[in-house]
Amino acid sequence: MDTVAAYHFGWIDAEGRPTDADSGKAVRPALALLSAEAAGADPEVGVPGAVAVELVHNFSLLHDDLMDGDEQRRHRDTVWKVHGPAQAILVGDALFALAVETILRGGTTHAARAAGRLAAASRKLVDGQAQDIVFEHRERVSVAECLEMEGNKTGALLACAASIGAVLGGADERLADALDTFGHHLGLAFQAVDDLLGIWGDPGTTGKQTWSDLRQRKKSLPVVAALAAGGAAAERLTALLTADVKKSQEEFDDFGEDEFAERAALIEEAGGRRWTTEEAARRHRRALDALDGLGLPGGVRERFTALADFVVLRQK
Amino acid sequence: MDTVAAYHFGWIDAEGRPTDADSGKAVRPALALLSAEAAGADPEVGVPGAVAVELVHNFSLLHDDLMDGDEQRRHRDTVWKVHGPAQAILVGDALFALAVETILRGGTTHAARAAGRLAAASRKLVDGQAQDIVFEHRERVSVAECLEMEGNKTGALLACAASIGAVLGGADERLADALDTFGHHLGLAFQAVDDLLGIWGDPGTTGKQTWSDLRQRKKSLPVVAALAAGGAAAERLTALLTADVKKSQEEFDDFGEDEFAERAALIEEAGGRRWTTEEAARRHRRALDALDGLGLPGGVRERFTALADFVVLRQK
Repeated sequence: MDTVAAYHFGWIDAEGRPTDADSGKAVRPALALLSAEAAGADPEVGVPGAVAVELVHNFSLLHDDLMDGDEQRRHRDTVWKVHGPAQAILVGDALFALAVETILRGGTTHAARAAGRLAAASRKLVDGQAQDIVFEHRERVSVAECLEMEGNKTGALLACAASIGAVLGGADERLADALDTFGHHLGLAFQAVDDLLGIWGDPGTTGKQTWSDLRQRKKSLPVVAALAAGGAAAERLTALLTADVKKSQEEFDDFGEDEFAERAALIEEAGGRRWTTEEAARRHRRALDALDGLGLPGGVRERFTALADFVVLRQK
Repeated sequence: MDTVAAYHFGWIDAEGRPTDADSGKAVRPALALLSAEAAGADPEVGVPGAVAVELVHNFSLLHDDLMDGDEQRRHRDTVWKVHGPAQAILVGDALFALAVETILRGGTTHAARAAGRLAAASRKLVDGQAQDIVFEHRERVSVAECLEMEGNKTGALLACAASIGAVLGGADERLADALDTFGHHLGLAFQAVDDLLGIWGDPGTTGKQTWSDLRQRKKSLPVVAALAAGGAAAERLTALLTADVKKSQEEFDDFGEDEFAERAALIEEAGGRRWTTEEAARRHRRALDALDGLGLPGGVRERFTALADFVVLRQK
C-alpha cells in the first residue's frame, strides 16, 4: 500500500519512479498549524493535527474519485484508474486509521478531544459525500439542502482543521468553537469556488475535464441557485435537468460539448454563476467575522486572512 | 445511509421491511465486555469499546465483501450487491468514523488509550486485507507470511477487543498486553477455523458458496500448509495453483465443481486440512496460556475460556 499512497501523494509515478507532482494545496494542514498559534502554542503543537486532517482529506479523495468515477486528479490518473478499485478503498481506509493513530499518539486529554473532533468531522464528510451522490439522481435540490451537503462535505473538515491545533494547544471551548465557525464558513467559500470551477474552470488549471460537475449531474450551488431563481432560463434548465435525471448513464455519456455548454449557459443566464460568486464572498466575510473579539496573538489573524483570501481567490 | 446500515446489520430487508436476520456472532463485543471485568470494572465500562470493535468489524466486512466480490454474507445478499458499491464504501467509512467517535465520547485518558489501540488495530486489519488480496495473485505464499497476514486481518481486532474493555477500565499495560496476546492467538484460531470452513464448510451453515476460498484463489492456511508439505500431492497442487494464478478471471470463473473438488482433495491429501485443524487447537491453547498468572477476578477466566471454545468449536 505504501507504493499506492506514494503515487497518490505525487511522490512517485505509476511505474514507481520518483516525481515531484502536485500534492495538493495543503490548505488544511496550514490551517491546523496556525490554529495552534491561535491558542498561543507553538505551531509544532499543531503538527499531529495537521497530518491528521491532511490524511483524512486524502482518504476522502481516494474514495470519492472511485465512487464518482473521476479519472483525473491534480493532472494525473486517479489511484483507482492506475492501481484498481480495491487499492483505492484499502489505501483510503489505511490513511483514515493512520490519521486517528497520529493524533492520539500524544495520549493526552487534549489529543482525545482533538481526535473526537476529527472523527465527528470525518463522519460528516462521509455524510456529505453520500448526500452529494443522492442529489445527482434527484430532479430538484434546494439551495438550503445543497448548503447543508457542502457544509458536511467540505465545511466540517476545514472547521476541524481550523480548530484542531488550538484544541491540541489546550484552547477552551469558546476559542475552539469560534475557530471551528471560521473554518466552516471558509469551507463553504472554498466549495462555492470549487463549484464554479467544476462548471467553468479551465481544464488546464483544474486538472479535470471540461464541465466536470455537469457530466456527473452534480446539483452544485450554481445549479441549485439557478433552479431556484425562477424566470425563463430557470424553467428551461428545470426541464432539461428533469429529463437528464431519467436518462441512463449510457445515454448521458453520449452527450457532446454542446449539450453541456447549453446547460452552463442557462445556469449563467438564470443567475446561478453570479449568486455562487457572491456566496463565496459572503462566506469569506462571515469566516473573517468569526475571528472578531478573540484576542488572537499578533500576526495570527493576518495569516488566517491571507489563507482565506488564497482559498477564495485561487485559480480564478 | 441509515437504511443501508440497517440492512447490513440484518434489521431490515432489501425493501426496508423489519426483519430479524442474523447479525453475526458478536464475539468481539462479548470479549470487550469481559475485558472490562478482567480489569475489575463493571462490564458497562466496556460498552463503548464493545460498540467500537463491532463497528470496525462491520466496516471491514462492508469493504471486504465489495473488494472480494462476495455476493452472500450471513445467508443474505451483500450490501454492494443490493445497494451498489458506493453505498458499501460510504457506509463502511461512516461506521469506522462512528467507532472512533463512540470510544472517545468519554473524553478520558483511558478513552484516548483505547482509541489509539483501536486505530492501530484497524490499520493492521486493512494491511491484512491488502496482503490477502496480493497473495491471491502470487504463486507461492509461505506459512509464515500467511500467519502474519491472518494476524493482521483477524488477530489484531480480536486482540483489541480482548484488551479494550480493560484499557477503558484503567488496566495497566501488563494486563492490557496479556489480554491482547490472548485475543491475538484466539484470532488466529478463529481464522484457522474460518479457513477450514472456506474450503470444506457446508454452504447451508456458512452462508457462503461451496469452495468459496478456492474460487477466489485465496492462499489460506490449508493451502499454504499443503504447498509447504512436500510430496506428490503438494507437487501436483503446486502445478495446478501456479497455472491458476496465470488464468484470467473469466477463464477461472468457468471452472466447475470438479476442478475445485480436485484442489480440495489435494490440499487434504498433502496434509493442509490436518495441519490447520491442529493449528487452531495450538492457538486456542496459547490463547488460554496467556491468561495464566494474571489473577483475574472470579469467573472471568472461565467465561474467556467458554468464548474461546465457542470460537474454535463453532459450526464444525
